[in-house]
Amino acid sequence: MLKLSSSQPDFAERLKALLAFETAQDPAVDAAVASICADVHHRGDAALVEYTNRFDRMQAQSMADLTLSRAQLEAAWQRLPAEVRDALSAAAERVRRYHEKQLAHSWSYEDEDGTLLGQQVTPLDRVGIYVPGGKAAYPSSVLMNALPAKVAGVAEIIMVVPTPGGERNDLVLAAAYIAGVDKVFTCGGAQAVAALAYGTETIPQVDKITGPGNAYVAAAKRRVFGVVGIDMVAGPSEILVICDGDTDPDWVAMDLFSQAEHDEIAQAILLCPSSDYIARVEASIAKLLPAMPRRAIIEASLGNRGALIQVRDLAEACEIANYIAPEHLELSVAEPDALLPQLRHAGAIFMGRFTSESLGDYCAGPNHVLPTSRTARFASPLGVYDFQKRSSLIRVSQAGAQKLGRIASLLAHGEGLTAHARAAELRLDGGAEPQS
Amino acid sequence: MLKLSSSQPDFAERLKALLAFETAQDPAVDAAVASICADVHHRGDAALVEYTNRFDRMQAQSMADLTLSRAQLEAAWQRLPAEVRDALSAAAERVRRYHEKQLAHSWSYEDEDGTLLGQQVTPLDRVGIYVPGGKAAYPSSVLMNALPAKVAGVAEIIMVVPTPGGERNDLVLAAAYIAGVDKVFTCGGAQAVAALAYGTETIPQVDKITGPGNAYVAAAKRRVFGVVGIDMVAGPSEILVICDGDTDPDWVAMDLFSQAEHDEIAQAILLCPSSDYIARVEASIAKLLPAMPRRAIIEASLGNRGALIQVRDLAEACEIANYIAPEHLELSVAEPDALLPQLRHAGAIFMGRFTSESLGDYCAGPNHVLPTSRTARFASPLGVYDFQKRSSLIRVSQAGAQKLGRIASLLAHGEGLTAHARAAELRLDGGAEPQS
Repeated sequence: MLKLSSSQPDFAERLKALLAFETAQDPAVDAAVASICADVHHRGDAALVEYTNRFDRMQAQSMADLTLSRAQLEAAWQRLPAEVRDALSAAAERVRRYHEKQLAHSWSYEDEDGTLLGQQVTPLDRVGIYVPGGKAAYPSSVLMNALPAKVAGVAEIIMVVPTPGGERNDLVLAAAYIAGVDKVFTCGGAQAVAALAYGTETIPQVDKITGPGNAYVAAAKRRVFGVVGIDMVAGPSEILVICDGDTDPDWVAMDLFSQAEHDEIAQAILLCPSSDYIARVEASIAKLLPAMPRRAIIEASLGNRGALIQVRDLAEACEIANYIAPEHLELSVAEPDALLPQLRHAGAIFMGRFTSESLGDYCAGPNHVLPTSRTARFASPLGVYDFQKRSSLIRVSQAGAQKLGRIASLLAHGEGLTAHARAAELRLDGGAEPQS
Repeated sequence: MLKLSSSQPDFAERLKALLAFETAQDPAVDAAVASICADVHHRGDAALVEYTNRFDRMQAQSMADLTLSRAQLEAAWQRLPAEVRDALSAAAERVRRYHEKQLAHSWSYEDEDGTLLGQQVTPLDRVGIYVPGGKAAYPSSVLMNALPAKVAGVAEIIMVVPTPGGERNDLVLAAAYIAGVDKVFTCGGAQAVAALAYGTETIPQVDKITGPGNAYVAAAKRRVFGVVGIDMVAGPSEILVICDGDTDPDWVAMDLFSQAEHDEIAQAILLCPSSDYIARVEASIAKLLPAMPRRAIIEASLGNRGALIQVRDLAEACEIANYIAPEHLELSVAEPDALLPQLRHAGAIFMGRFTSESLGDYCAGPNHVLPTSRTARFASPLGVYDFQKRSSLIRVSQAGAQKLGRIASLLAHGEGLTAHARAAELRLDGGAEPQS
């Protein structure tokens, strides 16, 4: 595992190299996705069934074979052990309660002329949730995508989830059940994204698509962006741990593992002022790694993209964190609140030694769909605000039209837009034409 | 101009055809943009200067020739007539005041275990504003893009504006001056978007790019999305007027013109229950059109994409408006407030006979950068919220870690993520391992 120190003269370059990740869009993937999207757009269900049979080794005759009813979701829920049902329910309840705090409300005010200005906030009508299938099928992701939409008041939630070889995941379907998903179709890939974006005979067109997926799904989301809304194009997952050197090193080692076990290209980095503590974390890594079922993935991830970095102090650690703008930022320090004002960019901040990232992944309440690859510089966690939108409200009084009309007329003539100016001037008392 | 009635048996199809707009991405544009973006990414300033000289008929020797200082912006401001300066100031002040209502603030709460949950809201560090040059150079757009960023607390605003043939627009530069833009570079096209996204020796990398542009600019924004944030990919501008038949028909005709004069592909549609009133608007159009300086554009726009549609009643008009999800929606009716609860999708709603769309374009206060092409189904006006982002805050108490740890452990094992489970279990009192 790479070891760096911020005092090295080439530290900035080495940090940049560590974070570098080839996000270039593969032209071959793009071309395949363009063709799949166009085909589903024009041939609808027939194309969707064909691609699903081909890519997911299915033998569907029609969309009926790719459609799950609420009753089938409920049956999956009932098949789960009671303790798992309880855990899912408890997680859903906490996630729902947290997201209720994010609800935006319509607002307006009147100015001195009686002119009303404001915004009307409304939910999206219908959203599509993409849930990956196979080994990366995560019921927690179903909750994290569906519940904010539900809290926002979205009337209909459509989920797509591929079932390669026909294998269905009860946990995923049960999560869809308690999250209130309305319809589930067992398809995935670019073809499922296109079906949601354009609609088919069976799948209704949605207004926005959220949820992670592979390179084909990401390329398809980018392509249909504008026809529908999309959440973000997710990169590999990352954690940055800032530790003051007083947390049990086993805890920090396991937190790094919990990121690394996602994927060979996941990234786990530790920042700490103490070289002695870094050595203790290294020892914990060596001790704990052999027992991990996903040992090979963890080893590859830590070896390729992980790092233990010695910093001057916690203030410098915060500066580096702002540059990295990590998806997950753990403040494993005595006084995490004191660091908050220095932190500008992070998807989620896990404060204090007891706050392992994994608690946030499942059940603390906040969303686990977070901006990756430095996009926390400009993007936010998935939230209720992603499922609401705003319409400006403007109701100009007759008095207001006199004052605003003169300003608008002048500026419109300045832009050479005479009809804009005349529309304002016609509302002036007497329909005067001050400028033309 | 097309006339329709909602009682025609094929009305739904005809409406769909009226709204249809080919948004397919042109592969030739995409390929050119890919190559320009890669070149600017790798060669920086040198490539940017070359493309600017080639596409904008400039003779710049270096970026110094494409850089405007704050002093040059101020000089442009001083050259304007006093009444124009006053109008710009008044507009800026109203826009600023409105947007201040949109500021989001950090929030948090503690649950019964002393676990803290919330979101920290922070501004973006640096944003780039794209302002079109040439005939579509609009100072109002500078205000509408820069002021929300300023209100959000963005530390640095970089503007790019092409100056084809070297021609600079004092109004645009003056607007940049009073809006508080920090740096202006006179370049445009895909090359300017790439420079803002990747940074060059002279142009600092920004975190988000907003502002409208041509097909090359739109393709470039789509391409760099993810490296930086973008606002939206704008389509042609649209207005939908719902009138009860009691507004001066000249006013409504001029409101339709004010949209149509933007562009041959702009769209202006009237919905009204009275065929008699529709005939009067037609007469007003015929009467007023000859005097319009942009008559040819207006005629093309109304002829190609405009429509006068007779509806059953205002309730049906609202239903049709929700389907169209127009950028601009005028409620030219006696009681606009009564229609509001029936309206779900619109960029901005102009309420009452005195509220011409042009007042909103310039100075009412709300933003004139609005979702087009039915994207108001999922998107909002540009606002302060586009220049703020959120970091989740999670501080789990020791008591909370006991309760949450058991839930997380169960769910993590269910997903096969053992390190996630172990990270939670290590925080249980005594570091128990309930699951493994």
